[in-house]
Amino acid sequence: MQLVYQGKTKDVFALENGNYLLKFKDDVTGENGVFDPGANTVGLVMEGAGRAGLSLTKYFFEKLAEAGIPTHYIDANIEEATMTVRPASVFGKGIEVICRYRAVGSFLRRYGMYAQEGQPLDAFVEVTLKDDERQDPPISEDALDMLGILSAEEYRTLKQLTKQIGQIVKTELAQKGIELYDIKFEFGRVDQDRKIVLIDEISGGNMRAYQNGQYIEPLELEKMMLSTK
Amino acid sequence: MQLVYQGKTKDVFALENGNYLLKFKDDVTGENGVFDPGANTVGLVMEGAGRAGLSLTKYFFEKLAEAGIPTHYIDANIEEATMTVRPASVFGKGIEVICRYRAVGSFLRRYGMYAQEGQPLDAFVEVTLKDDERQDPPISEDALDMLGILSAEEYRTLKQLTKQIGQIVKTELAQKGIELYDIKFEFGRVDQDRKIVLIDEISGGNMRAYQNGQYIEPLELEKMMLSTK
Repeated sequence: MQLVYQGKTKDVFALENGNYLLKFKDDVTGENGVFDPGANTVGLVMEGAGRAGLSLTKYFFEKLAEAGIPTHYIDANIEEATMTVRPASVFGKGIEVICRYRAVGSFLRRYGMYAQEGQPLDAFVEVTLKDDERQDPPISEDALDMLGILSAEEYRTLKQLTKQIGQIVKTELAQKGIELYDIKFEFGRVDQDRKIVLIDEISGGNMRAYQNGQYIEPLELEKMMLSTK
Repeated sequence: MQLVYQGKTKDVFALENGNYLLKFKDDVTGENGVFDPGANTVGLVMEGAGRAGLSLTKYFFEKLAEAGIPTHYIDANIEEATMTVRPASVFGKGIEVICRYRAVGSFLRRYGMYAQEGQPLDAFVEVTLKDDERQDPPISEDALDMLGILSAEEYRTLKQLTKQIGQIVKTELAQKGIELYDIKFEFGRVDQDRKIVLIDEISGGNMRAYQNGQYIEPLELEKMMLSTK
């Protein structure tokens, strides 16, 4: 088992059978010790964050499988904080796809002239480039196509999958009285036919979840979602 | 004649017949005394810049009229540096539409991970919001529609007009051995049927023009384009 990539919140190992093992770490993104799912830096370590993120990811990826939505997920070992996945290639050097239900975060920083904080948004989808140096710039469908990152047809698939997956997560949260404000996904191409599937994770670390106007921290979200009461 | 708006590079007066008079100023956008068509601040005063900008605008707007492309232009008085235009309402609080033929400026600052400086772009169209405070953020077709700035159908019209007008300017410049790298337009709605027309100006102040790899300043561009030799 060989370490092939060290990410901000997880490490990636190559397995001998061609699959990959993701090791979820206790590092979470944020700045100055405050958690922020939109941040590019690892701001703090939260004991148990890796296992919590993996538990939620396992929960949602299995829900998606039931709904017939393809992901790279094979199985998970919560104790070890590891997840086995199929090999997938990312778009360009990596993109993030955001689905927004309320105007907060970078959306508000960009479009505050036209949007009030917390204003409802109708599952608005946007894409940003993973580029720390350039602060993850937003990029249009036309630019993605022109720069060879994603074809116009792939963009349509991505946007549709994003809305479908976002709705599933939003509904799951709503059943616990939690409201999803926004969520960030990563996608990749798998197999020879380069089918588009969800990759990476679905956890408190890449969404903003609120209850009664109060933001719910990732570790707390995992407890609220997965406790058997 | 009443002053209704003071812009960075022109003042706007309301005429009694319902039309407007634009007074082109000698102020040009830039930073630290260096001209930059992408800048949000007035960096310097160039003697004659107003009349030069108007001369080119008159030239191009009359070319567009010949090609059947609608603008707000009625007539111009070069000596006074004034242009008479039809009343038009802008989209939201104002947007800019950029057409790019080479990767420079803010495109390169955003997408430098995927583009080389000066790389050819195929009349790539993008829209930014006029919002000095938020550094004129780029905005997608979906966001323009969702925020009520521009409908999806209007976006298609805008994009098509932008490519048509850009091509006309590019061809005119090429006839003088000048290459157009990028150009920025403003559009508005006129008349009761809210028809989309080109407004504002077409001058050295809102394009990047090069000859033999050398950038051509706005005043020089006007001389090169309009001299009778």
